[in-house]
Amino acid sequence: MSKPSIPKGTRDFGPQVMARRNWMFGILRNAFERFGFQGIETPAMENLATLTGKYGEEGDQLIFKILNNGDFLAKADAQAMEQRDSKSLAFSISKKALRYDLTVPFARFVVMSRNELTFPFRRYAMGNVWRGDRPGKGRYQEFTQCDADIIGTDSLLCELELIELFNEALTKLQVPGFRILINDRRVLMGLAAAWGAGDRVQDLLIALDKLDKVGADGVDAELVQRGFSEEVRKGVAGLVSATEGAVGEFRLSAVAGLLADEGQDGIADLRWLIQAAAEAGVPEEVLVFDPTLARGLDYYTGAIFEVRVDNSPVGSICGGGRYADLTGIFGWSGMSGVGISFGADRIYDVLEHFGRFPEDLAISSEVLVCRMDAGEEATDYDLKALRSFRSAGVKSEMYPDAAKLKKQLKFASDRAIPFVVLAGDEERTASEVTLRDMTTGEQHRLPVEAAVARVQE
Amino acid sequence: MSKPSIPKGTRDFGPQVMARRNWMFGILRNAFERFGFQGIETPAMENLATLTGKYGEEGDQLIFKILNNGDFLAKADAQAMEQRDSKSLAFSISKKALRYDLTVPFARFVVMSRNELTFPFRRYAMGNVWRGDRPGKGRYQEFTQCDADIIGTDSLLCELELIELFNEALTKLQVPGFRILINDRRVLMGLAAAWGAGDRVQDLLIALDKLDKVGADGVDAELVQRGFSEEVRKGVAGLVSATEGAVGEFRLSAVAGLLADEGQDGIADLRWLIQAAAEAGVPEEVLVFDPTLARGLDYYTGAIFEVRVDNSPVGSICGGGRYADLTGIFGWSGMSGVGISFGADRIYDVLEHFGRFPEDLAISSEVLVCRMDAGEEATDYDLKALRSFRSAGVKSEMYPDAAKLKKQLKFASDRAIPFVVLAGDEERTASEVTLRDMTTGEQHRLPVEAAVARVQE
Repeated sequence: MSKPSIPKGTRDFGPQVMARRNWMFGILRNAFERFGFQGIETPAMENLATLTGKYGEEGDQLIFKILNNGDFLAKADAQAMEQRDSKSLAFSISKKALRYDLTVPFARFVVMSRNELTFPFRRYAMGNVWRGDRPGKGRYQEFTQCDADIIGTDSLLCELELIELFNEALTKLQVPGFRILINDRRVLMGLAAAWGAGDRVQDLLIALDKLDKVGADGVDAELVQRGFSEEVRKGVAGLVSATEGAVGEFRLSAVAGLLADEGQDGIADLRWLIQAAAEAGVPEEVLVFDPTLARGLDYYTGAIFEVRVDNSPVGSICGGGRYADLTGIFGWSGMSGVGISFGADRIYDVLEHFGRFPEDLAISSEVLVCRMDAGEEATDYDLKALRSFRSAGVKSEMYPDAAKLKKQLKFASDRAIPFVVLAGDEERTASEVTLRDMTTGEQHRLPVEAAVARVQE
Repeated sequence: MSKPSIPKGTRDFGPQVMARRNWMFGILRNAFERFGFQGIETPAMENLATLTGKYGEEGDQLIFKILNNGDFLAKADAQAMEQRDSKSLAFSISKKALRYDLTVPFARFVVMSRNELTFPFRRYAMGNVWRGDRPGKGRYQEFTQCDADIIGTDSLLCELELIELFNEALTKLQVPGFRILINDRRVLMGLAAAWGAGDRVQDLLIALDKLDKVGADGVDAELVQRGFSEEVRKGVAGLVSATEGAVGEFRLSAVAGLLADEGQDGIADLRWLIQAAAEAGVPEEVLVFDPTLARGLDYYTGAIFEVRVDNSPVGSICGGGRYADLTGIFGWSGMSGVGISFGADRIYDVLEHFGRFPEDLAISSEVLVCRMDAGEEATDYDLKALRSFRSAGVKSEMYPDAAKLKKQLKFASDRAIPFVVLAGDEERTASEVTLRDMTTGEQHRLPVEAAVARVQE
């Protein structure tokens, strides 16, 4: 048997990491529920047809497909096999796939459950998603998304609430220096139209999206390569310089000045959102209008969000936006929604990088009952003590063998168990136990109930 | 676009089901932690080589394999393709698979993390597993297991603790009429030896395991078909009749009488466990010695457990046992462990069947802030009220549009939201809100803080 391993891009989470992750998920769940979102869960396995074509061509190739069970070759596409055409063959030997995000399954769920749901429907979901990306810093093949979406209304109040939710949850998680970037697809479309490129918006977005990584010159080179006109190149340069330096209302006005009529509705919504968020206590430096923010996914139609952390070891930690017609892909048109996604693994990486996890997260039992004696009477006595702690809700365990006391104490210390309970002949005769505080070394003899009470303090 | 669907054997969980599942998981998690188990999580995707060969030939075929990404045919086994040999081809086009249970990944984890762990190691894990079984009553292709294992000791106290854990958790979950069946593989091996079939124990176990479904005559027919001797057939018949009627100590003695020396150690351990469990408050009728209990998996070597529910719509809801050498399959021999698994989906089905879920599980917001007026001042006022509830920890939402009040109240009622908050001109002038109790129809005007306090009661 060769040395065991796990697939690249996946991870084992030991007790300490789990305690931190659960703390993080607890804060997010609590925030989602306070904001009135209801939890749902969809399967990890979706029909391949449900996922295909929803994430662009590149996304399609990153979807993990599940091989049909049994004699899958019996129904395989003979021609594709003949021609060694992996792409075509895949669809004849695989019907299921692992979900790529939680949004498309949500749209599918809404369509399938439309008769049981009350709209507008506010749902949250926390679960793993899988992508065949090349693993790297902050990029995993199996990772956790925590999403909140509101579907069935186009009220701008929803965008406001999601901004507040970002701010509250990330503040409670103690994420340092986070900024919520906001833009509106209508503004981007308006700019494209103003530059005479209204028919190539998607291409323009892809180029613009790289500003962060390649700078203004890099974007310009990309525009040239993609065959955009002089006018577009000038326009983009103007956008960048118009927004450099200008902040808040000045930046909004500067961008509004670059637009004709188209896109002014986006500016008006952004202006209202930024002001309303400030009144809600979201600091001005946290919610930042970024007219170059584009986001990858096709389905956004209004506001778009991205959360970045200053000096972060990873890329953006959250994203989201408004989609006028998400369920249209499953045959139910006209349902407007807006949603956000917290990238739990990247938030974890940021908190770990900056040392922001609470130090007192319990990862172990609070009490270890040691075994001084393997005799029947002693065993009974120890078990009873153990049960007293447990039934009072104290996390407790007993060392399984009457090993040397030194070994048992070392075990408690290695596991960071704060209290040990000892009961020898003397204690049993007096109906007491010795409770030892492993941090201070102090110990006291007292009745079990008193020991339980002492630990509960 | 055709009507969307999900793969057979998978399910969507809506808000009500989720609330019930989370209640169930909360009780299990709490019990695991009180018993000193530490949570870990392993990936859903394991290397195929990690899983293959661990679950018998039938199990291997039920493992969901993940198609390699990209041009998987480039490295495909040409001969297997030529011969249309699905089984052989699978290994050359798939390197990863979905985990089949939590036990084998646990063994892999222990071996890979041996240097960071303190032994004996008590771990729990709650997560989905996937099996290509034919879906049916209580049988899903994606389902949740909740496991607790102790590895690194052969102390019988661990078996006792796990029995107590079964009893406590299932009692807290209000599972009606559950019975923990217990047996010991050494007893079964001793019986086989006594009947001259010591070299065919696994075959004998498979036949015996069917007693529940096909009765004594069915088992006898199976033994004939499998070519067992007259002596074995007589032995099994004797075992069944010796245990029919006899309970408790009588049954133990009856089975002990069928054994030579081999297996008496198993009887002694069972006797101690049953007595110790009774002293721990596990009712005699709950923990039942069943000498015909066999369990499917090969790796058990000592005690084995199975939990069944009287008049249940599904099969066994929990299982487990002692394995002297679980990590041996990954190259680290001699680590003895014992573990149990709660089948969360079947427990859910049982609780639903018997109507045992608590009725007051919160699945919705506690407060809906209605919108009487879309004006700016009114919106601000409503938002402030909303935030007062949320920052006090009250689950709250606001209706997103100033729709007709009747529609908003119907929304609250459909969603079973217990309180609504209304603020018109009068309330705003008086710095108050109207709080309406949707159950009684009663309503009061009062300051927001007082309304928050009222809801918190």
